[in-house]
Amino acid sequence: MRGVVMHTAGDVRVEERDDPKIIDATDAIVKLTATCICGSDLWPYRGIEPADHQAMGHEYVGVVEEIGSEVKNVKVGDFVVGSFVISDNTCEICQAGFQSKCVHAEFVAQTIGTQAEKARIPHADGTLVATPGQPDPELIPALLAASDVLGTGWYAAVAAEAGPGKTVAVVGDGAVGLMAVLAAKQLGAERIIAMSRHPERQKLARYYGATDIVEERGEDGIAKIKELTNGLGAHSVVEAVGTQESFMQAVGATRGGGHLGYVGVNYDVTIPGIELFFAGIHTLGGPAPVRRFLPDLIQLIWDRKIDPGKVFDLTLPLDQAAEGYKAMDERRATKVLLTL
Amino acid sequence: MRGVVMHTAGDVRVEERDDPKIIDATDAIVKLTATCICGSDLWPYRGIEPADHQAMGHEYVGVVEEIGSEVKNVKVGDFVVGSFVISDNTCEICQAGFQSKCVHAEFVAQTIGTQAEKARIPHADGTLVATPGQPDPELIPALLAASDVLGTGWYAAVAAEAGPGKTVAVVGDGAVGLMAVLAAKQLGAERIIAMSRHPERQKLARYYGATDIVEERGEDGIAKIKELTNGLGAHSVVEAVGTQESFMQAVGATRGGGHLGYVGVNYDVTIPGIELFFAGIHTLGGPAPVRRFLPDLIQLIWDRKIDPGKVFDLTLPLDQAAEGYKAMDERRATKVLLTL
Repeated sequence: MRGVVMHTAGDVRVEERDDPKIIDATDAIVKLTATCICGSDLWPYRGIEPADHQAMGHEYVGVVEEIGSEVKNVKVGDFVVGSFVISDNTCEICQAGFQSKCVHAEFVAQTIGTQAEKARIPHADGTLVATPGQPDPELIPALLAASDVLGTGWYAAVAAEAGPGKTVAVVGDGAVGLMAVLAAKQLGAERIIAMSRHPERQKLARYYGATDIVEERGEDGIAKIKELTNGLGAHSVVEAVGTQESFMQAVGATRGGGHLGYVGVNYDVTIPGIELFFAGIHTLGGPAPVRRFLPDLIQLIWDRKIDPGKVFDLTLPLDQAAEGYKAMDERRATKVLLTL
Repeated sequence: MRGVVMHTAGDVRVEERDDPKIIDATDAIVKLTATCICGSDLWPYRGIEPADHQAMGHEYVGVVEEIGSEVKNVKVGDFVVGSFVISDNTCEICQAGFQSKCVHAEFVAQTIGTQAEKARIPHADGTLVATPGQPDPELIPALLAASDVLGTGWYAAVAAEAGPGKTVAVVGDGAVGLMAVLAAKQLGAERIIAMSRHPERQKLARYYGATDIVEERGEDGIAKIKELTNGLGAHSVVEAVGTQESFMQAVGATRGGGHLGYVGVNYDVTIPGIELFFAGIHTLGGPAPVRRFLPDLIQLIWDRKIDPGKVFDLTLPLDQAAEGYKAMDERRATKVLLTL
């Protein structure tokens, strides 16, 4: 089958990879319908993380082609959406809603690589969720978004305890930040402040429910959030950038006793303990347990209640993946969908 | 009046200070019955924080001697317990239960100094809580503990979401750690693991409700907690030491999706963002909003349901405060009560 392989930083190729086969009885083989390029794929692309002939990709939707003998929840022919972290969905950690910390957790990005025609998905019953039927083609981008960016943005908003009566500030206007705005809106937040200085993304943030836009960053950004919240800071803050500056901006924008949800942190971020201490805030972060939210997110998409597919602003065939990486790296695209 | 003044690191003297006077209509003057020395008082004593003729002390119980014209909740003659952070208890942050981040928050340690015969307490209605009557002398140590160490340990356990069915690990066997053990027990935790290598404190930890003792620290301590929790880590972890090693030990001991409550952090602690991220845990920390818990804690003490006074293992008259500091600095005492 064809698949994307990153030979080294900046060198992305579509080449022949071995067809995946069932290995464990809990596996499924999924024939992918669409996949995409994630902001985190740019880390090895830019040399921030090592890359050595790495099979790429961790977001995916497709049709189940084959299942292992123990798979019960999905069947051949089902259209499925999967999480970017493998989970059994039965262990104590999964049952508590933290599937990304499952005792069988495995990162699809590290061991599978879904920018390809097919993928072997371990623990299929605990990782994949079937849609109610075969989706209209127009729903594919939205369903694909659920696999990571929507699920991650949603988790960030939940981690920040966005909800009725709350003011939510979202640091970051990339795909995940925009999805956190959408989630905050769905969760009933009263006021949603998008921190963005990019006109097109500001527009999309407003489309998804942002009530206010703040262009300032760092200390100025914090001051602006306080100005908008009677000097107190936001009840809920989503951190969706992952740099030192953005993380501390998020900490500073959260009111005492408020909640900070963060869903990505660069390797060089160090948090001064004393600053976090005196902020007096709740934090919850980590790779999102997307599997927790998938059934609800799929239903919301199926019922046309949310439209997360708009975060894809460039669609290319898989064979042009290299151009997709380039467009994202050069910020010509927010998020690239790859068709198969 | 007499009061403790730290001239410089290691130089603690009891000398004449001006009698406090009502300044604002919301003030009360409290004639102190007992006060004590806190682990945090050792920071300037050891030169970790600056000290320049600083009036010391932030834990206090006593009798109201005078009130400002707007004080309504306490009256002259009331026996009161106060929080170590001033709060109005009416602002939005206080109402949410985070009185230590009150819009009028003020640290008693920085501006008042309660190792003295009297103290002016601003925002008396929001800071002080009267006991149901004049307490028996035997209850004084317990009530004094509520002012900080009990309130702080209790908050740490609440922040860690200790409760029925939960395994709680407490990092630190000082007064606050021991109080967190007491709190976890009261909150109904199923299993309480005290991390301690000090025989006397292990004994006290067991007295307060610890079911297990772990002597290992750092990575070995984490491994031991995992061994005791089916490989998963504790649901709830309290960090009550505040060093780099203890903080990361607490992070590592918390299961994915679990809760870490931390109530003290040294100035040199830096948290690697990526480690906190991949831990996938909830955290809540900061100076404890003791005022939130005071009414309940006073009642528990009044009804003889808890006995936090045992954390004081040395009692001295105020005049011998210097010896008290020395005993704590040399670890001959866990916590020193000063009588007046």
